[in-house]
Amino acid sequence: MIRDKILAEIITIGDEILIGQIVDTNSAWMAVELNKTGISVKQITSISDDEQHILQAFADAEQRADIIIVTGGLGPTKDDITKKTMYQYFGAQSWKTDEETLTIIEKIFAKYNAPLLESNKLQAAVPSNCEVLVNDLGTAPGMLFRKSGKIFISLPGVPYEMINLMERKVLPIITSEFKLGSIVHRTILTVGVGESFLADKLESIENQLPQHIKLAYLPKLGQVRLRLSSYGNNAELLKTEVDAYIEKIAAAIPDNWVAKEDIPLEKVILNIMQSRGLTLSVAESCTGGAISQLFTQHAGCSSVFMGGAITYSNQLKASILDVKSETLKTHGAVSEATINEMVTGALVNFNTDYAIAVSGIAGPDGGQPDKPVGTVWIAVANKNKTIAQKFVFGNKRQQNIERSAVNAFHLLYKLLKSDKID
Amino acid sequence: MIRDKILAEIITIGDEILIGQIVDTNSAWMAVELNKTGISVKQITSISDDEQHILQAFADAEQRADIIIVTGGLGPTKDDITKKTMYQYFGAQSWKTDEETLTIIEKIFAKYNAPLLESNKLQAAVPSNCEVLVNDLGTAPGMLFRKSGKIFISLPGVPYEMINLMERKVLPIITSEFKLGSIVHRTILTVGVGESFLADKLESIENQLPQHIKLAYLPKLGQVRLRLSSYGNNAELLKTEVDAYIEKIAAAIPDNWVAKEDIPLEKVILNIMQSRGLTLSVAESCTGGAISQLFTQHAGCSSVFMGGAITYSNQLKASILDVKSETLKTHGAVSEATINEMVTGALVNFNTDYAIAVSGIAGPDGGQPDKPVGTVWIAVANKNKTIAQKFVFGNKRQQNIERSAVNAFHLLYKLLKSDKID
Repeated sequence: MIRDKILAEIITIGDEILIGQIVDTNSAWMAVELNKTGISVKQITSISDDEQHILQAFADAEQRADIIIVTGGLGPTKDDITKKTMYQYFGAQSWKTDEETLTIIEKIFAKYNAPLLESNKLQAAVPSNCEVLVNDLGTAPGMLFRKSGKIFISLPGVPYEMINLMERKVLPIITSEFKLGSIVHRTILTVGVGESFLADKLESIENQLPQHIKLAYLPKLGQVRLRLSSYGNNAELLKTEVDAYIEKIAAAIPDNWVAKEDIPLEKVILNIMQSRGLTLSVAESCTGGAISQLFTQHAGCSSVFMGGAITYSNQLKASILDVKSETLKTHGAVSEATINEMVTGALVNFNTDYAIAVSGIAGPDGGQPDKPVGTVWIAVANKNKTIAQKFVFGNKRQQNIERSAVNAFHLLYKLLKSDKID
Repeated sequence: MIRDKILAEIITIGDEILIGQIVDTNSAWMAVELNKTGISVKQITSISDDEQHILQAFADAEQRADIIIVTGGLGPTKDDITKKTMYQYFGAQSWKTDEETLTIIEKIFAKYNAPLLESNKLQAAVPSNCEVLVNDLGTAPGMLFRKSGKIFISLPGVPYEMINLMERKVLPIITSEFKLGSIVHRTILTVGVGESFLADKLESIENQLPQHIKLAYLPKLGQVRLRLSSYGNNAELLKTEVDAYIEKIAAAIPDNWVAKEDIPLEKVILNIMQSRGLTLSVAESCTGGAISQLFTQHAGCSSVFMGGAITYSNQLKASILDVKSETLKTHGAVSEATINEMVTGALVNFNTDYAIAVSGIAGPDGGQPDKPVGTVWIAVANKNKTIAQKFVFGNKRQQNIERSAVNAFHLLYKLLKSDKID
C-alpha cells in the first residue's frame, strides 16, 4: 500500500483513564514511536470497557485511520472484555489456543511459584482469525486483525509489555507493510520568555514557512518549546529544510534558546557540564529530591551529578550541610542567609565544581505572614560566585516544587553561560 | 435537567499529545473531579488542531454526552484554532471583547514588564454567543456554549489555568445545573501478589456483587488496586453498601492489602509512621532522589521524613554515609556489605528511627557479568533490625528506578508491620 500519509489511531480501553486513576502514558509513548516511523496519529481515544462503545469506537476509527492500535482490557478478570469484543467485531468463528503463549504462561507461574488457574490458561485463547503477537513478558498475547485494508492491533495495557510488543513486533510489521511518507520534527527549547514574545520575534520567519512545515509553540512552566514539523516524501530534503529554519529561529532569539533539540532543561545542563568536565551536587529542601530525580533519570549523568543532600529537617541542614544553628534561628530555613550556607555546604562538603540549593515553603501549609506559601530561595554557586534569588510562586505544592526545579536549572544555566564568557 | 446518569466527554486539541510530546495529565485531573461530582466520563479524545476534525469530534461528542469539555488551542499563535472553530460550530454572528479579560491581560503584561502585542489583546475577543469564564491566571478566557440542551466548555490547556477555571467556575455551574446521580468509588491497595491470585481469592465475593457495583483490578508495578464503583441515586446507601464489600474483600486477602483507600504505598508508610511518632531517612544511590520525591510530594510528610543523602558517587557514600572504602573496594557499590553500611549510615548520621538504602545498576549501561543491569540491593533498618534484599529487575532505567522504590516501600512496610506485632 502506497499512500501519502499513513494515519494511526490509538484506542485505550478501561475505566482507569476515564476516572483519572491513571494517566495515559502508554499513548504518549506509542505516539512518539509511530511519529518516528512517519505515521501520523490522527486521534487518541479513551473509552470504557463497554461492548457497544468499543464496537462504535472501532468502527469510527476504521473510517479515519489505516492502523488502529488498541490497548488494555486483556486481563484475566471479568471487567476485561476487549478480546471477546474483537472476536465479535472481526466476525471470528471460533477460539484457538496459542501454544507458545500457553508455554509462556506456564513458565511465568512456575517462576513465581504461583498456582496456575484456569483463568490464566484462558489467556492463551484468541479468536481464530487473528495473528498472534506473542508476548514474552506477560500472560496476555497481542493480536493482529486485518479488515478492509486496515490493520487492528490489540496490545496489553501493562506499559513494559506494550512497549516490548511494539518494539519487537508491531513497528517492524507496520514499517514493512506500509510505504511511509516522512515526518521530520525538530524542536528548540527556550527558557524565561513567553509564547507571545516569541511569536512576535518569529513573525516574519513564520510567515515565510512553506505550507508543509508547521511551527508549534509548546509552553510549560516558564519554558516554551518551538517545534517545526515537516511533512513530505524525501526525508533528507525535509531535514535539510527544517535544519535551516531551526538556525533562522535560533538566530532570531539568541538570548532565549538553550537547546536546538528536544531535551529537557536539566539535560542541557548535564551536556554542558559533561563537555567541560564539571561536577555538580545539590542541597534540596522543599524540592525534596525532585531536582536530583530529574538529573538522575538521564543515563550517564553520573559523570556530572555526584549526589547531594535532601535536608528536609533543620537538623540535617546543620549536620550534613553545616548550616549554622544561629542562621536558622535568626533568619529561618527559608532565607537568603540559609540558602547561601546550604549551597556553600554542598559545594565544600560534597566537593563539586558547582552546587544548587533550594529551600522554600511548598505548601499547602507552613506559610507565615512575611513568608507566604510559595516563597522559595534558590542558590547556585561555584568556587568564585554565588547567585541567590527569592521567588514567590503560588499555593499549589506540586507546582511549587516543579517551578523551583525549573528556576534552579535556569539560574545554573545562566551561571554556566556567564562562566564561559568570563 | 434530571437524569439517571450525566455523561461528560473531554476533548483535547493540539498536536502535543498526538505526537507524544506531552502526556495528557489534564484529562486525568478533570476525570477525577467530574467523577467526584457524580458525572461519568464517557470518552476522552485527543485530536489535532485541524478544523474539520474538531467539528466532527464536537458533533460526535454531542451525540454521546451532556457536557463536553474542550481544552487547548486557545493560545495567541497561528496554530491555535479552537476559538474560531467554536465560533463556526455554534453559529456565532460576531465577536465581542470581554473587558474583564482585557484588563487581566493588561495587568499580566504590566507585571512582567512585557510588551503588550496586538495578538495578546485579541485573546480577549470571544464569539458573541458564549458566556465568558474569566481566567484570572492567564490571557485566554474560558468559554461556555449551550446547544440542544448540551453544554460545551472551552478551557485553556495550561494545567493551572484549567484547574483554576474548573474549580472556580465549571464545577459550580455543572453541579448547579444538573441534578446528579451518585457514583461511589472505593479502593483497596494490595502489594506483592498478582491480579489472577486476587481474582481467585475474591471469586465468590465478585459473584455476589449486585449489578450496580463493579470491581476493577488495576495492576501497577507489583501492586494491584481493587476498585469498587457503585452507581445509583442514594449516595449514603451506596456508600454503606460499598463499605461493607470493602470489608469483605479485605477479610478475604488479609495478608495482601495494605490500605483500604486510594493512596500510594509511600503514603501508607507515612501514615503508619506518623501515627507511631517515627522518623525516617534515606540513602539513595540508583534511585537518585525518586524515593525522597515520592515521600515529599505529600504535604505534611515533614513530621516523618527528615531527608537523607543522594550518594551517586562512591566518594559521597563514604563522606556522608561512612561507607568504608575497603567495603566499596572489596564488594563494590552494589553489594550486601555496602547496602548494610549505607542503611546504618543513614540511621546513625541522620538520627532517625528507620532508614531506607538503595544501591543498584539502573542501566542501560554499567552492568557487569556478575552484576547485570537491573541488579539492585535494598535495605531497610531500625535500631534493632536490618533487612537487606537483592533484586534483579530488567534493563529499562526508569522502570528499574520505579521498581526499586516500590520494593523499598514494601520491605519497609513489612518491617513496620513486624515491629508492631513483636
